[in-house]
Amino acid sequence: MTKAEAAAFLSAQEAVCILTHRNPDGDTIGCAAALCRGLRALGKTAWVLENPQFTPRYAPWLAGLLTGEARGTVISVDIASASLLPDNARPLAERIALAVDHHASHTGFAARSWVVPEAAACGELVHALLLELGAPITSETASAIYLAVSTDTGCFQYSNTTSNTLRVAAAMRDAGCDAFPINRLFFGVRSRGRLRLESRLTEAMTFFAGGAGALCVLPRAWMDELGLTEDDLESISGFPRSVEGVEIGVMLRETAPGRVKLSLRTGPGYDAAAICAHLGGGGHRAAAGAALDTDLDGARAAVRAALQAAGVEG
Amino acid sequence: MTKAEAAAFLSAQEAVCILTHRNPDGDTIGCAAALCRGLRALGKTAWVLENPQFTPRYAPWLAGLLTGEARGTVISVDIASASLLPDNARPLAERIALAVDHHASHTGFAARSWVVPEAAACGELVHALLLELGAPITSETASAIYLAVSTDTGCFQYSNTTSNTLRVAAAMRDAGCDAFPINRLFFGVRSRGRLRLESRLTEAMTFFAGGAGALCVLPRAWMDELGLTEDDLESISGFPRSVEGVEIGVMLRETAPGRVKLSLRTGPGYDAAAICAHLGGGGHRAAAGAALDTDLDGARAAVRAALQAAGVEG
Repeated sequence: MTKAEAAAFLSAQEAVCILTHRNPDGDTIGCAAALCRGLRALGKTAWVLENPQFTPRYAPWLAGLLTGEARGTVISVDIASASLLPDNARPLAERIALAVDHHASHTGFAARSWVVPEAAACGELVHALLLELGAPITSETASAIYLAVSTDTGCFQYSNTTSNTLRVAAAMRDAGCDAFPINRLFFGVRSRGRLRLESRLTEAMTFFAGGAGALCVLPRAWMDELGLTEDDLESISGFPRSVEGVEIGVMLRETAPGRVKLSLRTGPGYDAAAICAHLGGGGHRAAAGAALDTDLDGARAAVRAALQAAGVEG
Repeated sequence: MTKAEAAAFLSAQEAVCILTHRNPDGDTIGCAAALCRGLRALGKTAWVLENPQFTPRYAPWLAGLLTGEARGTVISVDIASASLLPDNARPLAERIALAVDHHASHTGFAARSWVVPEAAACGELVHALLLELGAPITSETASAIYLAVSTDTGCFQYSNTTSNTLRVAAAMRDAGCDAFPINRLFFGVRSRGRLRLESRLTEAMTFFAGGAGALCVLPRAWMDELGLTEDDLESISGFPRSVEGVEIGVMLRETAPGRVKLSLRTGPGYDAAAICAHLGGGGHRAAAGAALDTDLDGARAAVRAALQAAGVEG
């Protein structure tokens, strides 16, 4: 459906409950918070459904908006497929009346959906919806939209960023969002555990293909040794590719004994999805992955073979 | 003078030569390149004066614009005081006809100046001037302006970023700037040397004031041991303060035998300038420094004493 149709549908609802995705990030949370506040400002009953995986750093945006029980019309934001619903939202899969999303892989699981794959963040779509609905953008709503668009673009650094992303961010600042504390929290600081992790990854990093490839391993034991949390591992998959000159970044993370998660990030000229396909995985050209049933040494050998099969000297 | 007056002055010139500052960064270089291209597009003769400190990463923006000799009207961009002129531009100090700048500390050294301290980057001012002059914003000019505004704000992350900064960036993308390679070069990658440096700084970091303070030392020997360049040290002063929970970040860099450069970064609630004043230095509330005539151990003790004098447990 179109933006106008999605807005008209929302406008006709009395009460809505908003769903976020599994492993919730700033985009799904910011979208849910902004839509919830916007609909409330229009006089509607609106809640965000609790998600057992919400982490403490997002609490300020969700305060006063959470409910344990879904009542009213169910809406999903930033959710590409029903398989990404958190466990407590699974029973609602058939009840989702509207999905607002920006994933090209969106499966159309909802009764209605407004999907714009060109948007860097779903927050851009929620912002457009709120404008279409005539909802006021308070400083709290602006903060939630800013959270969404900044976190999904690495603070406007990633290649998905568009001029619209930057314009929405500018409008949110003018609407009263205090952006710097958000930038500092998500992009300006690293935890001591994260720093120690990066330090260890750096010391043990190996290079191949004349320095165009870098490989890091993350043994499970480090989680305890360094006191790491899931927040500490955010975007760690991109670490090897963040080294200057590296076009093929390989991260091998031991997730359980005999289980390794491969994350591959590549620059132009290499096809991460094709390389991962040799290992039963898949993804996009620039970012792909695979789950390997082996230990870290076995994973290292498997990746080397897959790289060679793809014509890259591993 | 006003923007309109600065534009009228530029409009009346036949030939201009643009100066950049000592230790040139993306803002001064982006401003010089954009202004040079804009003036050329208006049919004028325009050059950027060579700066012996230009580093290779900026070469693409300066290609075809450099001259070794200043002819015509001399303009400075992003230069706060005549003391910041590179050596080869010193003889021109008295000839600077117009200074365009955004530093609150601007000394008014030029015959005319247009200074807007509210601008996050001088690039915002050059952009406004080009619009006022009716100069076309080509993709190359847009790239230079984007370089200026992105590098001076840490990719829109620092507290100086305004909605105008973001809007200028959006306009530059629409004008054809390919922003992602710039973002990746300046914010998305770290050299191997930089990573090894951060790793060593992390291992040797000490904390004080219950974790609110962090102190790093950078011995001169590491430069050779890790093969570091000046580019590898960019913004390293902010490293200790980039640790989660740290409100007082102290960096002690040994610059020569018996010489240590102190850089202090503080959060709200601490006054970096006041602390550095105890050591004969100064600066701003959030960022200050001092030059210490001692070795690293002596510097550590001096900083501890200054922190205690300022009421912070060192």
